[in-house]
Amino acid sequence: MDQPISKAELEAILEKYRAFYTDGRPASYIPALGLADPSITGISICLNDGDEIHAGSFCFNFTIQSISKVLALICVLSDYGMDYVSQKVGLEPTREAFNSLLLLELDNGPALFNPLSNPGAMVVTSLLRGSSEDKLQQLLNLAEKLAGRSGVIWDEEVYRSEKLTGYRNKAAVNLLKEQGTIEGDPEEVLDLYFRQCSIKLNCKDLARIACVIGLDGVDPKTGERLFPREAARNIRTIMATYGMYNQSGSFALKIGLPSKSGVAGGIMSVVPKKMGIAVYNASVNKIGNSLVGLKILEHLSRELDLSIY
Amino acid sequence: MDQPISKAELEAILEKYRAFYTDGRPASYIPALGLADPSITGISICLNDGDEIHAGSFCFNFTIQSISKVLALICVLSDYGMDYVSQKVGLEPTREAFNSLLLLELDNGPALFNPLSNPGAMVVTSLLRGSSEDKLQQLLNLAEKLAGRSGVIWDEEVYRSEKLTGYRNKAAVNLLKEQGTIEGDPEEVLDLYFRQCSIKLNCKDLARIACVIGLDGVDPKTGERLFPREAARNIRTIMATYGMYNQSGSFALKIGLPSKSGVAGGIMSVVPKKMGIAVYNASVNKIGNSLVGLKILEHLSRELDLSIY
Amino acid sequence: MDQPISKAELEAILEKYRAFYTDGRPASYIPALGLADPSITGISICLNDGDEIHAGSFCFNFTIQSISKVLALICVLSDYGMDYVSQKVGLEPTREAFNSLLLLELDNGPALFNPLSNPGAMVVTSLLRGSSEDKLQQLLNLAEKLAGRSGVIWDEEVYRSEKLTGYRNKAAVNLLKEQGTIEGDPEEVLDLYFRQCSIKLNCKDLARIACVIGLDGVDPKTGERLFPREAARNIRTIMATYGMYNQSGSFALKIGLPSKSGVAGGIMSVVPKKMGIAVYNASVNKIGNSLVGLKILEHLSRELDLSIY
Amino acid sequence: MDQPISKAELEAILEKYRAFYTDGRPASYIPALGLADPSITGISICLNDGDEIHAGSFCFNFTIQSISKVLALICVLSDYGMDYVSQKVGLEPTREAFNSLLLLELDNGPALFNPLSNPGAMVVTSLLRGSSEDKLQQLLNLAEKLAGRSGVIWDEEVYRSEKLTGYRNKAAVNLLKEQGTIEGDPEEVLDLYFRQCSIKLNCKDLARIACVIGLDGVDPKTGERLFPREAARNIRTIMATYGMYNQSGSFALKIGLPSKSGVAGGIMSVVPKKMGIAVYNASVNKIGNSLVGLKILEHLSRELDLSIY
Repeated sequence: MDQPISKAELEAILEKYRAFYTDGRPASYIPALGLADPSITGISICLNDGDEIHAGSFCFNFTIQSISKVLALICVLSDYGMDYVSQKVGLEPTREAFNSLLLLELDNGPALFNPLSNPGAMVVTSLLRGSSEDKLQQLLNLAEKLAGRSGVIWDEEVYRSEKLTGYRNKAAVNLLKEQGTIEGDPEEVLDLYFRQCSIKLNCKDLARIACVIGLDGVDPKTGERLFPREAARNIRTIMATYGMYNQSGSFALKIGLPSKSGVAGGIMSVVPKKMGIAVYNASVNKIGNSLVGLKILEHLSRELDLSIY
Repeated sequence: MDQPISKAELEAILEKYRAFYTDGRPASYIPALGLADPSITGISICLNDGDEIHAGSFCFNFTIQSISKVLALICVLSDYGMDYVSQKVGLEPTREAFNSLLLLELDNGPALFNPLSNPGAMVVTSLLRGSSEDKLQQLLNLAEKLAGRSGVIWDEEVYRSEKLTGYRNKAAVNLLKEQGTIEGDPEEVLDLYFRQCSIKLNCKDLARIACVIGLDGVDPKTGERLFPREAARNIRTIMATYGMYNQSGSFALKIGLPSKSGVAGGIMSVVPKKMGIAVYNASVNKIGNSLVGLKILEHLSRELDLSIY
Repeated sequence: MDQPISKAELEAILEKYRAFYTDGRPASYIPALGLADPSITGISICLNDGDEIHAGSFCFNFTIQSISKVLALICVLSDYGMDYVSQKVGLEPTREAFNSLLLLELDNGPALFNPLSNPGAMVVTSLLRGSSEDKLQQLLNLAEKLAGRSGVIWDEEVYRSEKLTGYRNKAAVNLLKEQGTIEGDPEEVLDLYFRQCSIKLNCKDLARIACVIGLDGVDPKTGERLFPREAARNIRTIMATYGMYNQSGSFALKIGLPSKSGVAGGIMSVVPKKMGIAVYNASVNKIGNSLVGLKILEHLSRELDLSIY
Repeated sequence: MDQPISKAELEAILEKYRAFYTDGRPASYIPALGLADPSITGISICLNDGDEIHAGSFCFNFTIQSISKVLALICVLSDYGMDYVSQKVGLEPTREAFNSLLLLELDNGPALFNPLSNPGAMVVTSLLRGSSEDKLQQLLNLAEKLAGRSGVIWDEEVYRSEKLTGYRNKAAVNLLKEQGTIEGDPEEVLDLYFRQCSIKLNCKDLARIACVIGLDGVDPKTGERLFPREAARNIRTIMATYGMYNQSGSFALKIGLPSKSGVAGGIMSVVPKKMGIAVYNASVNKIGNSLVGLKILEHLSRELDLSIY
C-alpha cells in the first residue's frame, strides 16, 4: 500500500509528544520497572505489505508485560477455540482496574474474568499446553514467528522483581485456584505468568505482530498463515473492548483501535487490514497506560482517520 | 450499492429464526409490555443509497424503550459536544446490569454512568434543552427527521404502566439528584425518561436511523447533514462498547456491530458506511435483548462479513 | 437505688465536655437541622426507681430522628414477635453507613436490612398497624406512655425539610418496594418515616424511655408492664450491635451500653436493670453521632463502670 | 457460687440436642477436619470459684481453629493495648463471611479487618513478639496458663492439610502485605496462623479459658492475674459483636453471650463474672458454627437467663 505517513512526519510526531512523559512516571509497583529511562521513545508502523516506518528508539527492547496476554490468548484460541475458552474467562468488559478481585466476591459461582485482565490472563496461561517450560517456549516461539525474527528472550531481573513483590497477583491466582478455575499448582501458573510478562520485544516487533493480527493471522511478507483467522478476529474484538484496562471506553472514543498496553510502557494497536502500530515510552498514567503512547496514537488515529468505529 | 441480500433471502432468514422466540418471553417488569405478541417478527435493512429491503412485520410499531437513549444522546452531543457530556456520564463499559446502582455505592464522589445504562441515560435526558415538553418534542422531531417520515408518537399506556411500576428507575433518579449529577426536579426527569422510552417506531424507521448514524449523520437519500459527524462516530463507539447491556462483550465477538437494543424487542445495528439494520421480536432473554433479533443479526453478520473488528 | 452520681457531679461533667461541640457541627443534609444551636447541651438519668438526675437543657425538645426507630420496633415486636419481624429485616450488624444501599445490589433475593439502618427502619414502619394516621398516632402514644407524660408532638418544619431533600431515603423505599419487602405505596411509607423522625422529645423523656427498656418494659414508678419483656431484650440487643450506626463496634468497646443515636444530636443509652441515660447536643461527627454525647457517655461508663461487657 | 445446673441436668441437655449433628457436617474445606466423627459431643462449665461441671466427651481434644484468634488477641492486647491494635484492625462488625476480602476492594486506603475475621486475625498474629517459633510458643504458653494445665500441643496433620488447601487465606495474607498492613514475610505469617489454628484443646480447657476472660483475666482458683483487666473487657466486647462470624447478630439475640467458635466444632462462651462454657461437636452449619453447640448454648442461656443484654 501507499505509505500513509513518511518517516519524517513520524519523527515530527514523536518530537511533538515525547515531552508528555513528564506528566507520569515509570510504573514503580514492580521495582525493576521503576528504573526505566522515561525519555526513551519509539514508534513503528508495519504496513500490510510488510513495509515498515520507524522513528526514535524503535529497536529498544522492553518487557512487554500485559501485551503478553495477547500472545497467550492467540496460542490458546488456536488450540481450543473461543467456545471452550469462553467457559473459563469472561467476555464482558469491566470498569474495574486490571487487578481488581471484586468479581471474586460479588459473583455467585466461579467468577469469569476478561482474558486481558490479570486474573483472566492467568487462566489463559494455565490453559497453555505442556510443561511449564514448554509453555514459555511456545510463547517465545510465537513471538518470534509473528515478529519475524529469532532471538526473543525474557528478562530474568524484571521477572525476579515482579515475583518478589507481586502480592496482589499471588492473591489472584490463589483465589482462582480456590474457585476451581485453574488446575495444577497456582504458584507454577503465577511463576509462568511473571515470566511471560518479562518477555522482551521492541516497537518494530510489536508493530509487525499487530499487523499480523490485523491481517487475520497472515504474514504480511510471505502470505503464510501463522494462526487461524477466527482467533485473529476474536483477539481484535477483545482488544477493542478491554485492551486498555479501565481506560478502554475513552480510548475507543478517542482512538478507536483494537490495542493492548503493557505497564512497562508499550502499546500495540491494530488497524484491521491496513497496518500495525507500536509505541513505547515508560512513563505511564495511573491506569498503567503509556502517556506519550496515548498522545501519539490519538494523533495518528485522527490525522489518518483510523478509528474502526 | 449492490444489494448485499435479496428480499427472498431475508424472508428465508426470518423464517429460519423466528421460532427462537419460544426460548424467552416479552419483558414483564413493565406490565404493558408483557402483553406483546411474541410471534410478530420484522427485519429491515436500509442501504447507504437509501434503498431498503424488508421482511415480516417491518411496519409494526413498538415502543423503542432503551433505543431512545441513542436519540437523546444525538441531541445532547450535537448541542454540547463530547467533552462536556463526558463530565456527566461515564465512558467505560461495565459488566453490571443496565439498571445496576452499584456504582453509586462504590465510587467516591459522584458516580458517572454509561449514557446507555439507565442512570446514565437519565442524566443525558436531563441535559436536553428547554421545558419538559420541548425536550420530548425535540426527540420526536429527531426521530422523524432521521426516519424520514412524520407522525411519530409515543404510547400513553406503556408510559403509564412503566411510571406506575418503575421503582428501580425512581430510586436511580433520586440517587443521581442526591449526588448532584442532575439538576431540577428528579420526578420530572424520570417522567420524561419514561415518555421517551415509549416513543413508537418500526423496523423500517430504525434501519434508516441506523443507516444515518453509519453515514456520519448524513441522509442516505438527500445527502443532507442531519447531525454532526463527530456525534455520529461517538455514538457508534458507545453503542459498540455498551449498547447491548452486559451482553455487549459477547455480542461484539459474535456480531461485531455498534447496536442498541430495547427491552420491548427492538435492536438497531449500524454497519458503518454501508447500511443500517433493524430487527424486532418481543421475546427477550434475561438481559433484555431480543432472542430472535440476536439470532438474525448473528446470521447476517457472519454471512455478509459485517463485523467491524 | 442509691444515686450513682449527684446533680452537681453531672453538671460538672456537662461543663467539662460541652466544648467538644466545636469539633463537629449540626447535620446539614436536612436543612432545618442545620439551624440548630450547637451550644445547647442536656443530660438526664432516670434510675430504676424512677428518680431522676438532670443537668443543662434537659427539657429542650429536639427531633429524635433515628431514635424513633426504637419506638417503631417496640410497637412491631410487641405486635408480631421477633420470629416474624426477622423475616423482614436483617439481624447482622453491618459496617456500611446507615443509609447504604449496597446490600440491595450485592444480595441475591431480597436484601434484609438491620432495623436500625434507614432501609430496615422503613420496613419496620411499613409493618405498623392501621392507616398512616393510626401508625403515627401509635408512635406518639407509645412515646407518651414510656416518657410518662402527655403532649408529645412532631415538628412540621423539620418533616417538610427532610421530605424535600431526602432523595436517598426515597431511593431506598423504592428499592424496597421493587424487591417486594414492603407492601402498599412506598411514598406513603416514606412520608410516615419522615414524620416519625420529626417526633420531638427531650433528654428527660428519653432517659425515662431508656430506663423502661432496661427494666424489661416495666414502668419504673408504677411497676406497670408497658410492653413485653421479650421485646425489651431484643431491642437492647439490636441497640448494642447496631444502634450507633457504623460506629457501633468502637462504641461497644469504649462505652458498652445498648444505645441509639439520632442525627439531630440525641443519644439514649440503656444500663440494663439500673438506669436510662440521655444526652443531647446538636453537633455530630461524620457518622451522625453527637460528639458531646459520646464524650459524656464515655466518661459516665468508665467512672460508674456501666459497660455490659 | 451455687451450681447453676447439676451434672445430671447437663447430661440430659447433651442427650436432648446431640442428634442435631445430622443437620450439618464437619467442615470439609480443610480435608483433615472432614474426617471428624460428628457423633462426639462434649460440654464443660467452669464456675467463678473454679468448680467444674462436665458432660459427654469433655476431655476430647480438637483443633481450636478460630478460637485461637482470642488467644492471639489476648497476647497482643496485653503487649500493646487497644489504642495501638485498633490502628491495625477494624472494630466494626461486618455482615460479610469470615473469609471475605470484599473490604480490600471497597475501601480506600488500607482496609481494617475485625480481629476475629480471618484477615484481621492474621494481622494480630503478625503483631506477636519474637521469632515465628517464639510466637507459637507464646500462644501455647498462654493456652496452658489459662487452661491451668501443661502439655498443650498442636496438630501437625491438620496444620499440613490446611496449609495445602488454604488458597483463600493465602490470598488474604498477600493482599494484607500488598496494602502494607503486615510486616515481614506473608508466607511466614500465614504459616504461623495455620499452626495456631491447629492448637488442640478440649471443652474442659476452653470453659476454663472463658471463665478467666469473664473474671477480667484472673484465675478462678488462685485469684492470680493472668492478663490485664482492660484486655479482658475488650476481648469480651469484640467476641460479643463478631465472635460468631456473620451469625453474630442472631446469636446475640438468641444467646447473648460473648463467644468464639472454631470451624472444627468448638464454641467457647463467657458469662461475665459468673462462668465459662464450652461445647464441642464437629458438625457445623454453612457459616461454620457448631449446630449442636448453638442448640445447647441457646438452651442454657434461656433456662439460666444468661444473656448479657
